[in-house]
Amino acid sequence: MSQTLLSTANYKGTRDFYPEDMKIRNWMFSVMRSVVQRFGYLEYDGPILEYFELYKAKSGEEIEKQLYNFYDKGNRHVAIRPEMTPTLARMVAAKLRELPKPIRWFSIPNLWRYEAPGHGRLREHWQLNVDLFGINAWTAELEIIQIACEILFAFGASPEDFRVTFSSRKILNQFLKNSLNLNQKNEHDVAKLLDKKNKISKEEFETQIIPLLPNKQKDLDLLYKFLSSSINNISDIHGITKEVLEEVQTFYKAIQSLGLDRTVFFDPSIIRGFDYYTGFIFEIFDTNPINKRSLYGGGRYDNLVGLFSNEQISGIGFGLGDVTLLNFLQTHKLIPSFQSQKGVFLGFLGESTYFPALSIASQIRQAGILCETNLESNLKFGKLIQQAERKNYRYMLILGENEMQNKKVILKDLSNGTQTEFHQNEIIEKLKSLEL
Amino acid sequence: MSQTLLSTANYKGTRDFYPEDMKIRNWMFSVMRSVVQRFGYLEYDGPILEYFELYKAKSGEEIEKQLYNFYDKGNRHVAIRPEMTPTLARMVAAKLRELPKPIRWFSIPNLWRYEAPGHGRLREHWQLNVDLFGINAWTAELEIIQIACEILFAFGASPEDFRVTFSSRKILNQFLKNSLNLNQKNEHDVAKLLDKKNKISKEEFETQIIPLLPNKQKDLDLLYKFLSSSINNISDIHGITKEVLEEVQTFYKAIQSLGLDRTVFFDPSIIRGFDYYTGFIFEIFDTNPINKRSLYGGGRYDNLVGLFSNEQISGIGFGLGDVTLLNFLQTHKLIPSFQSQKGVFLGFLGESTYFPALSIASQIRQAGILCETNLESNLKFGKLIQQAERKNYRYMLILGENEMQNKKVILKDLSNGTQTEFHQNEIIEKLKSLEL
Repeated sequence: MSQTLLSTANYKGTRDFYPEDMKIRNWMFSVMRSVVQRFGYLEYDGPILEYFELYKAKSGEEIEKQLYNFYDKGNRHVAIRPEMTPTLARMVAAKLRELPKPIRWFSIPNLWRYEAPGHGRLREHWQLNVDLFGINAWTAELEIIQIACEILFAFGASPEDFRVTFSSRKILNQFLKNSLNLNQKNEHDVAKLLDKKNKISKEEFETQIIPLLPNKQKDLDLLYKFLSSSINNISDIHGITKEVLEEVQTFYKAIQSLGLDRTVFFDPSIIRGFDYYTGFIFEIFDTNPINKRSLYGGGRYDNLVGLFSNEQISGIGFGLGDVTLLNFLQTHKLIPSFQSQKGVFLGFLGESTYFPALSIASQIRQAGILCETNLESNLKFGKLIQQAERKNYRYMLILGENEMQNKKVILKDLSNGTQTEFHQNEIIEKLKSLEL
Repeated sequence: MSQTLLSTANYKGTRDFYPEDMKIRNWMFSVMRSVVQRFGYLEYDGPILEYFELYKAKSGEEIEKQLYNFYDKGNRHVAIRPEMTPTLARMVAAKLRELPKPIRWFSIPNLWRYEAPGHGRLREHWQLNVDLFGINAWTAELEIIQIACEILFAFGASPEDFRVTFSSRKILNQFLKNSLNLNQKNEHDVAKLLDKKNKISKEEFETQIIPLLPNKQKDLDLLYKFLSSSINNISDIHGITKEVLEEVQTFYKAIQSLGLDRTVFFDPSIIRGFDYYTGFIFEIFDTNPINKRSLYGGGRYDNLVGLFSNEQISGIGFGLGDVTLLNFLQTHKLIPSFQSQKGVFLGFLGESTYFPALSIASQIRQAGILCETNLESNLKFGKLIQQAERKNYRYMLILGENEMQNKKVILKDLSNGTQTEFHQNEIIEKLKSLEL
């Protein structure tokens, strides 16, 4: 053992989950789980280490900069997963034929990225991943958007607390190709610029984009017109096929039918950074002026399973990070108090009451109620109360030698100090009525 | 994107959790959680990466061989956690003063060891960790043993399905020092040999141990007598102090009082490999002849927090691995079937029924019942049934155009083909009566 004391600091960019933090995390995960499970989604998980190859194949060599990658003791190049999608695609590809379709899956993995920790950006975070494979139709899009909204509703958010914007990659692609007549190279560069438009100044944006446009200012005006189009006037833009227009219009009608049109809006300016989206895309924003940021998003991808298999299956999904969600819930004051400890603290006084107390504790636990006891028989009454109070119990059972002899017990409400005494036979019934 | 297909194999020594595996894992974790929570234990978690230093300080430089350790991009030496105890000790040390005592904590982390995968040994596994800090008395030992037993009982094990053996490091230490008169070096070597006694032949054991014993065969006989002592005749061994004898005897009486004496036995031959146990130790064995192996164990350790802090706090705890537990549950046929999918599959036929079906699905989910639907409106009846059957639903609701017009719905029991038709107002009530 080393002689100098070690630091108690955790590794940079990570969090220790003390019980009070873990209660919030477990609550968040259980709300998310219950929503997606009610839609019939099944939970899966994979190992936290994958071969480096997986991430390189999906994102290119440059992903290495953001990865926790290393060589294991058998010289295999591995990485701690930075995202769940490659693992998901691998698992789906491995059993593509036998899995019942459509595949509805979710997972809440922890993910690692080597980046400078900052507001909402940590090196380790958790992320709900919801994916649907095998249906290439807007009904799948609708289900995914519905789930994305229902999750925030389940946390208590109102339809005005957030805003979902959607578009389709096909609209953007057709606009760039048919309306602006861009070649493939410029199409890609313009899309990349549009993706970072909100992170740079208007001037910077225009300086960079104009050289890429054949008709300069005229095209720029057209581009601005496109970006600010609504679902009603997007058809005024020439070059977008009727088929693609109908797709988004039908989808929007469905949003109206579900009564989600206070929350969900068409917005051709959204891009989503990932190169792999091929159709529908969406992004969810916090509407609170002090936290006006992208919360999460997703879309349709067609090529992922293709890394592993010659078979094709279309997928759509989204990922919701726990840090971003926590910020949203804090901003909107949606986190309940977990201060008060559920269950009952059973305090015994004096050595002879120890075994009778253990027996009562067992009965209470058998009834499914949490029961914690002291473990020292020489505690004074005041110390006993203090122990229960420091652990934030509201209710306490007290068994002293007098009570033991009379087969009684005292129930104390620590929030106001009131006490009642009753027969030990009545304990379960009394505790059940308190809904602990 | 790469052109050659990637392998769908996961990293060696790990598991993919497909939904059918994940159901079992979630069930195992929820049973464990509910038991320990009922004793008042609070869940915590830490990051999966810690500084290498932590493991070196606890286990020495040689731990490196078993670790997934590497240098991050900022040249920090880190390791994926091989066990939870150093993280636990770090977290407790960081808030030692403010945490209410006694500290009752648990966690179910995934852990990584670089070792040859084999039966019950994987590179990634999960482990329930239960720890109690701040009570240095046999009442804490009793609570920990009780929890260790209650977990297996909660899985449906009977008192004869497993055997808990306990002893105290103090007994062994006193025996080696006072009865065999060993010096410190030989004491350590004999303890190490005793720890691996069951893994080597009797001959090999004796060949190695005799040179370490001052009185050779006479000491060996005494050693065997010690190792086979029961709670009733351990006092016949000279050299063990009255105080230590009373400790184990008092503890055993408590075991009898709790009615655990069909399951819990004193056995001075148990050692537990870890160097850090300082008092009470225990180990749990499967009694099934085909899986007669150690399941899990734990004990009292006094020095852990000392790596980080000059303050002292005594701890006791155990760790239960998910692979070992799964083997036990399989051997004893204690895993329920998760084959049948809970909830209801709502199938709609024809395009016009889609929105009415979505609305019914929402109502069902609002009532807390899982409802999965098809997403293609052109499915034939037979295909619809097949989709529900392949997903293992027992119950299916069917909404065709006829039913829609009459505000009716059909409920089909896929296990026997029976169908009933009723008004859509009755759906929730009917489904609730099926306890989905």
